[in-house]
Amino acid sequence: MGPNDFFAPVADELQRVESSLETNINTDLGVLHAASTHLIKAGGKRLRPAFALLAARVFIDDLDEIIPLAIALELTHMATLVHDDVIDNSQIRRGTDTVKKLWGNRLSIYAGNLVFANSLSLVAGYQRQDMVNILADTSMKICEGEIIQMLSAYNTEVGMKNYLRRIERKTALLISVSCQLGALLTPAGIAEISALQKYGYYLGMAFQVTDDILDFVATEEILGKPTGSDIRQGIITLPTIYALRFSPHRQDLQRWLSSAQCCIEQTDHIVDLVIDAGGIDYAYYAAQYYTEKAKRQLRYLPKTPITENLGMMADFISNRDY
Amino acid sequence: MGPNDFFAPVADELQRVESSLETNINTDLGVLHAASTHLIKAGGKRLRPAFALLAARVFIDDLDEIIPLAIALELTHMATLVHDDVIDNSQIRRGTDTVKKLWGNRLSIYAGNLVFANSLSLVAGYQRQDMVNILADTSMKICEGEIIQMLSAYNTEVGMKNYLRRIERKTALLISVSCQLGALLTPAGIAEISALQKYGYYLGMAFQVTDDILDFVATEEILGKPTGSDIRQGIITLPTIYALRFSPHRQDLQRWLSSAQCCIEQTDHIVDLVIDAGGIDYAYYAAQYYTEKAKRQLRYLPKTPITENLGMMADFISNRDY
Repeated sequence: MGPNDFFAPVADELQRVESSLETNINTDLGVLHAASTHLIKAGGKRLRPAFALLAARVFIDDLDEIIPLAIALELTHMATLVHDDVIDNSQIRRGTDTVKKLWGNRLSIYAGNLVFANSLSLVAGYQRQDMVNILADTSMKICEGEIIQMLSAYNTEVGMKNYLRRIERKTALLISVSCQLGALLTPAGIAEISALQKYGYYLGMAFQVTDDILDFVATEEILGKPTGSDIRQGIITLPTIYALRFSPHRQDLQRWLSSAQCCIEQTDHIVDLVIDAGGIDYAYYAAQYYTEKAKRQLRYLPKTPITENLGMMADFISNRDY
Repeated sequence: MGPNDFFAPVADELQRVESSLETNINTDLGVLHAASTHLIKAGGKRLRPAFALLAARVFIDDLDEIIPLAIALELTHMATLVHDDVIDNSQIRRGTDTVKKLWGNRLSIYAGNLVFANSLSLVAGYQRQDMVNILADTSMKICEGEIIQMLSAYNTEVGMKNYLRRIERKTALLISVSCQLGALLTPAGIAEISALQKYGYYLGMAFQVTDDILDFVATEEILGKPTGSDIRQGIITLPTIYALRFSPHRQDLQRWLSSAQCCIEQTDHIVDLVIDAGGIDYAYYAAQYYTEKAKRQLRYLPKTPITENLGMMADFISNRDY
């Protein structure tokens, strides 16, 4: 089973989200068309809309009212992606066409801002102060997560706490908020909304830990980028943190991971050492731990086929190798 | 008289805005401190907070409730500035320190996002749906303005309409919204709020036209950047649009302004041709036109010393040479 199967109960609604994304991003500025197409493609699995829709579907059948929220959540995610794409002066982007060369970074920034403001505007449309507050607060924390990740690069001293805070902000919060806001638009009770929020949080943690595992073990074809991309950028994730403590070669690892040059030149070697040290196994257990915590929250929800679906989804998230 | 004199009626409040800006930007992320100091310094005249405070002061004495809005408006402006600072790959930044070299663009983007989300969060605190909508909508339009400006660079075909749309979004809207939101938090009537909104709009237009004039005629010391910076970046403003139509050397101008290289190598020459063609005089009249339109809106407001102050402020804005 793949995400498409788990998302089947909301497949129609996801289709509507998909087509609205294109119309929503298109301003009357022609140039944004290319950028928005890129953005829409980059989005991928539409996890956040799917979770908002599924969370609502636990309580209500008609999801018309959830669609703008689902779009807004994906737009927020997209804005993050496009800003992450902006590379630094010190790096060189190859094979750029003229427009990108001339306007690359700036257009990315402005397009990201536009998409985020658009998202905000959609949520503001609900006339629900609590929802706007949650989105604004989440955005601030996502930014902080990005800054923490940036600052932690090449720092072999970072520990578990730094890592967990980072992935919480980078990934778990927006998935958590997707579940929470989806439920907030239904007659769900406080305890149920809170359970879905926590479910999304733990599932988001499991999702990111698994993503960080896949960066070591999945093929370039599956990842859509070279294996070891995190190492190449000096981003130290859970498998590496483990290896830095327990690998017999931890001194080499420490030396290499502290150097931007070594991270690029020794990527394959570092990846092998992290795997050999048992870093992947350790991270796999961490992902399982969060999956179990996510599933446990589902006890507080009505026993519907959708709730069961959310449970299977959690298992899938931390065992995927697509 | 300078802005400090016009802002005197709200000097205490502006001081509170100033100190809150520093505490507001400081997250627990140490690195943002340097970035935020840079940001705070870059902000300059605090026009937007001042207008929100003055607009409110027309109707009420106690401005405590306006302070968070004033901070939010300046933060929105700052977020724009920091994103504008991000340079393109094709350019080289000189004399950067290590942190900037390593994290320059990315930190700027994330810091800008954080500051904007912070601003949003402050406005959301008012529990006023209309205010959040206005801010989200304005942000989208500001982004569009930045994209239009980017895309219009080196394009000698751009006309008045493009220019006016660009400066409306880049500058006039946020000043207009500052006046509008300041008044919205008072017992002002609909007609009065609308008059202040229009006052801010026309004043913002006059302000930006004057800014674009100063880029040609003010000294580097006054501008804080070299004279002719717009030309250097291929940004075609009102004086240049006029010169492209009416200069006897318009064919040279057209050729040079279409080329990024010529814009850099021939900056002084282009500046001289634009001035000789009467581009500055023309733009000066445009600024006067908008100033008059701004002042005319004040008729709809109560005749208070603050209203009179707003009128003098408009005159100052379009005659300044600081």
